[in-house]
Amino acid sequence: MILDRIDSPKELKKLSFAELTVLANEIRQLLVASVSQCGGHLAANLGVVELTIALHKVFDLPNDKIIWDVGHQSYVHKILTGRKDKMDSLRQYGGLSGFPKYEESIYDAFNTGHSSTSISAALGFALARDINNDDYKVIAVIGDGALTGGMAFEALNHAGHTSSDLIVILNDNEMSISKNVGAMSSYLNRLRTDPSYARTKDDIEQLLQKIPGIGPNILRAAGRFKNTVKYIMVPGTLFEELGFTYIGPVNGHNLEELNLVLSNAKKMKGPILIHTITQKGKGYEPALLNPDIFHGVGPFDIDTGSQVKKPIKTYTELFGEFMVNKALEDKKLVAITAAMTSGTGLSEFANKFPHRFFDVGICEQHAVTMSAAMARAGLKPVVAIYSTFLQRAYDQLIHDVALQNLPVIFALDRAGLVGDDGPTHHGVFDISYLRSIPNFTIMAPANENELLDMLHTSFYIGGPVAIRWPRGVGEGVQINSSRNTLDIGKIKRIKDGDNLAIIAVGRGVSIAIEVAKLLKQASIEAEVIDARYIKPLDNDGILETASKASYIITIEDNLLMAGFGSSVVELLSDYNVNVKVHRVGIPDEFVEHGKIDILYDFLGMDAKSIVESISTKWPELFGSYSWELLKFGKN
Amino acid sequence: MILDRIDSPKELKKLSFAELTVLANEIRQLLVASVSQCGGHLAANLGVVELTIALHKVFDLPNDKIIWDVGHQSYVHKILTGRKDKMDSLRQYGGLSGFPKYEESIYDAFNTGHSSTSISAALGFALARDINNDDYKVIAVIGDGALTGGMAFEALNHAGHTSSDLIVILNDNEMSISKNVGAMSSYLNRLRTDPSYARTKDDIEQLLQKIPGIGPNILRAAGRFKNTVKYIMVPGTLFEELGFTYIGPVNGHNLEELNLVLSNAKKMKGPILIHTITQKGKGYEPALLNPDIFHGVGPFDIDTGSQVKKPIKTYTELFGEFMVNKALEDKKLVAITAAMTSGTGLSEFANKFPHRFFDVGICEQHAVTMSAAMARAGLKPVVAIYSTFLQRAYDQLIHDVALQNLPVIFALDRAGLVGDDGPTHHGVFDISYLRSIPNFTIMAPANENELLDMLHTSFYIGGPVAIRWPRGVGEGVQINSSRNTLDIGKIKRIKDGDNLAIIAVGRGVSIAIEVAKLLKQASIEAEVIDARYIKPLDNDGILETASKASYIITIEDNLLMAGFGSSVVELLSDYNVNVKVHRVGIPDEFVEHGKIDILYDFLGMDAKSIVESISTKWPELFGSYSWELLKFGKN
Repeated sequence: MILDRIDSPKELKKLSFAELTVLANEIRQLLVASVSQCGGHLAANLGVVELTIALHKVFDLPNDKIIWDVGHQSYVHKILTGRKDKMDSLRQYGGLSGFPKYEESIYDAFNTGHSSTSISAALGFALARDINNDDYKVIAVIGDGALTGGMAFEALNHAGHTSSDLIVILNDNEMSISKNVGAMSSYLNRLRTDPSYARTKDDIEQLLQKIPGIGPNILRAAGRFKNTVKYIMVPGTLFEELGFTYIGPVNGHNLEELNLVLSNAKKMKGPILIHTITQKGKGYEPALLNPDIFHGVGPFDIDTGSQVKKPIKTYTELFGEFMVNKALEDKKLVAITAAMTSGTGLSEFANKFPHRFFDVGICEQHAVTMSAAMARAGLKPVVAIYSTFLQRAYDQLIHDVALQNLPVIFALDRAGLVGDDGPTHHGVFDISYLRSIPNFTIMAPANENELLDMLHTSFYIGGPVAIRWPRGVGEGVQINSSRNTLDIGKIKRIKDGDNLAIIAVGRGVSIAIEVAKLLKQASIEAEVIDARYIKPLDNDGILETASKASYIITIEDNLLMAGFGSSVVELLSDYNVNVKVHRVGIPDEFVEHGKIDILYDFLGMDAKSIVESISTKWPELFGSYSWELLKFGKN
Repeated sequence: MILDRIDSPKELKKLSFAELTVLANEIRQLLVASVSQCGGHLAANLGVVELTIALHKVFDLPNDKIIWDVGHQSYVHKILTGRKDKMDSLRQYGGLSGFPKYEESIYDAFNTGHSSTSISAALGFALARDINNDDYKVIAVIGDGALTGGMAFEALNHAGHTSSDLIVILNDNEMSISKNVGAMSSYLNRLRTDPSYARTKDDIEQLLQKIPGIGPNILRAAGRFKNTVKYIMVPGTLFEELGFTYIGPVNGHNLEELNLVLSNAKKMKGPILIHTITQKGKGYEPALLNPDIFHGVGPFDIDTGSQVKKPIKTYTELFGEFMVNKALEDKKLVAITAAMTSGTGLSEFANKFPHRFFDVGICEQHAVTMSAAMARAGLKPVVAIYSTFLQRAYDQLIHDVALQNLPVIFALDRAGLVGDDGPTHHGVFDISYLRSIPNFTIMAPANENELLDMLHTSFYIGGPVAIRWPRGVGEGVQINSSRNTLDIGKIKRIKDGDNLAIIAVGRGVSIAIEVAKLLKQASIEAEVIDARYIKPLDNDGILETASKASYIITIEDNLLMAGFGSSVVELLSDYNVNVKVHRVGIPDEFVEHGKIDILYDFLGMDAKSIVESISTKWPELFGSYSWELLKFGKN
C-alpha cells in the first residue's frame, strides 16, 4: 500500500502521478471502509480525493492554510495528515471529529461545520498575514451549495475588493446536499457547458501576465504551459465582476490538471477563484447513484450500500407525513427548507406539491424573511430548519417574524444533542435563543403523538411558533389516528407524586419517567410533568405543583444557561416560591461528538446520574433508603 | 401648496410633471423641517423624493406592495400616504415611526429596520401572490449599501431562479451609511461610468421583446419609446447572470425618466432590477455635503445644519479614543466594522490606521468570522457592531468564535433601549443571546471609566469578550488618566446596606444608585452592587450579598426573559438561597420608539417606579414609612 508510507503530506510530494492515482484508489477504499463502519459524510469525500491530494502536493501545510467549508469533506485531508490510522474512530466518542478541528491537528487551520464560512476565514488569514508580514498561502475550498449562502457572497465581495492573495477553490459537484437551486446554480451550469462563454485570446494573455515571471514572450515559448490555457479559457464574469481572477472549469478528478492549475495559481497575485468540477460519490457506485443518501449516512453494508432500517419511525418521517396530509386539506400551506429537503423529511411533500415547496439553498436568513412575507400575504408557511442552522436566522426571527407577530411555523429538527456530528451541530441553544423573543410560542414533544398534536395545534395559534424535536427515532408509542388540539401553554401531568416533582420537556420527559421509576425503588413517589410548552410557560400549573412539592427537578436537552429550567426558576423567583430546584441540562460548555447515550452519561443527564446527583444533594429525601443507591450506581 | 391636496397617492396621479416637480420641493422642505425638529434620517429621504413620487404615480398602493429596505428612507412615502400632518411627531413616543410600520398604515406592506431584508420579503409576497392567484405588483427598494448584505444576495439568487414577477429597485447613491466598500461597489461604479459596458443592439431588442405587446416591429414605430433605450443600454452582467433583467442606470431625480422606466417595468415579466442613481441629501446643502452626518441625525439648525454639541462625551467617542491610543502601542490591534465607521466611533482610527481598519460593508456575518480567523492568525481584532445588528451574526459568534475560544473583542454600542429608532433597533436581546454561549466573557460598564477599564481588561482575557454599552452620553464622571485591569468576573460593591441589595449592571447601576437614595428617605439602607460582569457571574460575591440580604433587586436594560436577573436567579436557585427577588428590565414584549426617559417610565424601569413597585410587593420593608411613598409618587 502506498498509503502506508504517507504519514504526513511531505511523503506525498515525492510520488509520481501514477503512484498518486493508486493512492487515490487506496484512499477511496479506506473512506468506504471507515464510513460504512462509523457513518459519516461519504459522497462528498469520495468527490474530493484527487483535489485534496493535489492541494497537499502543491501547497505546504501547516504553513499554508486550507479552510474546508462545512468541513465534512475533510476526511481525505485527515487521512493525508497523519490521521489515517484513526479513521476507524471517526465520529466516535473520543475519536476523530467528522470536521476539521484545530485541537486535533496542526494541519487543520480553522474549525468548520456550518456552511459558507470559509471565504471569510480565508480572508481573515490573508489580511492577518499581510499585516504580520508572514509568508503563506491561504486556500478556501467551498462547494457550489455553500456558495449560495449569503455569507459567502459577503466575503467574496470583500475579498474581491482587497488585493490580498487568496485562492478560493469552488468545488462544483452540481449539488449541495440535494440537487442545487438558485440562479447561481444555473450560472455555474452555463459556465460548465456553454462554449459562448469562451474568453478572447487577448483576455487570456492579459490574465497570464498576472503570473510573475511569465510574460507573453516566455509564455509563447513554453509550449507545455500553453496547454493550461484551456483551463483558463472560460471566464466567470460574475466572479470577475466581483474582483476575482476566474480559472476554470477544471476537471477535479485529473491529478495532472489539478497540479498544473494549482501550481500556476500559487504564483498568481490577488484573489483567485478556481472552478473545479467533481462528482459526489466518485468511485463507489451506491454513493454515485444516490449522493444525497450518501451525503451523511449511518453505518452501511459495503457491497450493497444498504443501511439498516430502523424499526421505529423517526420524528423526521412523522413530520414529513403530517405535512403531506395537512397540505391535502389546506391549500394555503407551503413548506420552506434551506437545502435540507430530505433531511427535514420533506421529500414527499416536494414531490407531491412542487408549487408549494421552496428549497431556497443554504440560505436560512432569506428562508425566514421570505416566509414572514408569505404569512403576511395570507399563506401558512412551515419552515423546516435544523435547530443548529436556525441560529443563522436569529435576527430574522426577531426582526421579521416576531416583531410583526406573523404566523410562521418553525419545524426544528435535530434539537438537543445530535451525537456524532458534535459541537458544531448540537441543537442545544434554541430554547435559550428563542424563549427571549416576544410573541413566540415554543413547544417540544415528549413522543410521537405529541409531535403530531403540536404540529396540528400550531396552525391555531396565529403567531410565530417553534416546535423542536430530537434527531432520530421517537419513543415508539402507538400513533393515534386523530389529532388533538392542545391547550396553549398548558403542562400535562403524567404522574402524581408526593414531595418531589420532575418538570421535563421534550426528550427530557422519557428521562423523567425513568427517574421516577428509579426513585420508586427508594419509596419516593415523584410527580412527573410533561411541560409541553417552553413558552408560554404554564405559570398556574407549575406554581400549583410547586405549592405541593418541596423539591423540583427540571430536565431538558438544551443549555442550562437561560434554558427551560432557567425559565422555571424565573417563575418560582417571581412568585417567591421557596422550593429546592435541581436543573438538569447541558452545562456551560461545548459538548463533543459521540453517541448520544455516551454523551448523556458523560454529562450526568441520564436517569441514573440524575438520581445519583440528587441523592447527594438532597440526602434527606432518601432517608433510610440512601444506602440503596448502590443499586442505581452507574455500571 | 400642492402637498396640501395630497391625502393619498390617488391625488398624486392626476398631477403634471411640472406640478410633481413643485411637489418634490415642498416635500423636501417638509422633510428638513420635520427632521430638524425630531431628528431622523434626512439624507436618505432627500435622495428618494422623486423616486418615491414616481413609484406612487406608477403603482397602485395598497394593492401593489412596496418594501423599503432598511426603511429609514420611507418618510417621503409616509408623507404621500396620508401621514404628512403627523411628520412633526416623527420618532416621538406615540408618534410616527421612523420606519415602515404595518400597524401604522395600510400602505406599509412589510415592516423593516435592519438592512437587506427587502428582496426576501418581496419574493415572499410575489410567490404568495402566484399561489393565491392574486394580482398585484411587488417592488423592493434597496440601497447599494444594503445590497452588500449576504441576505440580499441569497434572495437575488433565489428570485432570479424563479419566474415570478418582481421588481427590485437598486437605489444607488454610492454609499451605504458612510462611503461604500467592496467589489460590488466598484462594480456599480463601472456600470455608472464605463461606456464599454454598453450592450449591443441585438441584446436590447431581445430584451424589449420581454415587454408584452411591444415586439420589435411596434418598437421601431414607437419613436418616443425608443428614447427609453438609453436606460436599458448598459447591461448589469452580474444581475443578468443571476437571472434578472437589468435596466439602468436611470437618473433617480428625473421624474419623467423614472415614470417611463417604471411604467415599462410594470409591463415586463420575471424578476427585474432597475438601477437608479440618486444623491443622498439632494436639495439641502448641509446634508449634500455631509451625507454621513445627516444619515441619522438629531435635531439641528435648518440654516446652518449644525447640531447641538453635547457637553458630555458619548461612550462611542470614548471607545474611539481608546482604540486610537491602543493601536499606537499594540501593532496587532485591528478594528472591524460593518458599514458603521462613524456610528461606532472609529473614524479617527480609520484615518490613522487605514491598513488595520476593515469596513466590510453591511456584512456582520462575514465581519465576525473574518475576525475569528484574524485572531487565530495572531491579530487582536476588535469588532464594533451595534447590539441589534450583532443579532445577524449570532451563529458566527457561537460557531466560529466561541467554539474555538478565540480572543475576539466585541464592542457593542447601542445596547439597551436606543430611543427614537424603536423596536427594530433596541439592543435589548444581547445579554440573553450572549450569556448562553460558552467561553464568552460579557461586561457592561456603569460609567465612562469602567468602559475604558473594561476595554483595557478585555485584551488580557484570551477568549471571546463582549462589552455592551448604551447609546449616547455617559454619566459625566471624571476620566481617570490611567487604566485599571479589572478582576475577571468580580462585582464592585458601591454601597453597603442592610436587608436589601440592588445588583445592577450597565446603565442599571445609575438607576440603582438613585433607587438607593430614594429608599434612604424611607430609612432603608440598600446595598448597591455594580455587577460589571454578566458572565462569568461573580457567584461568590453575589452569594455573600444574598447571605446577608433578604431582598434583592436586579436592574438591567435587557429583556427580563433569560437576561442578567435571570442568571442571578439561576445562581440563587442552584445554591438554594431563599431570598425575595425583584427583577427590573424589559418585559416580554417589543418596546416602541420614543425618548429613553419616557420609555423607562412607561416600562416601570425608572427609580421612582421601581421604589413604587417594591413598596407594593414588599410593604413590610417600608414599615411606618410606607405612607411616605407619596413623595416618591410619579409626577
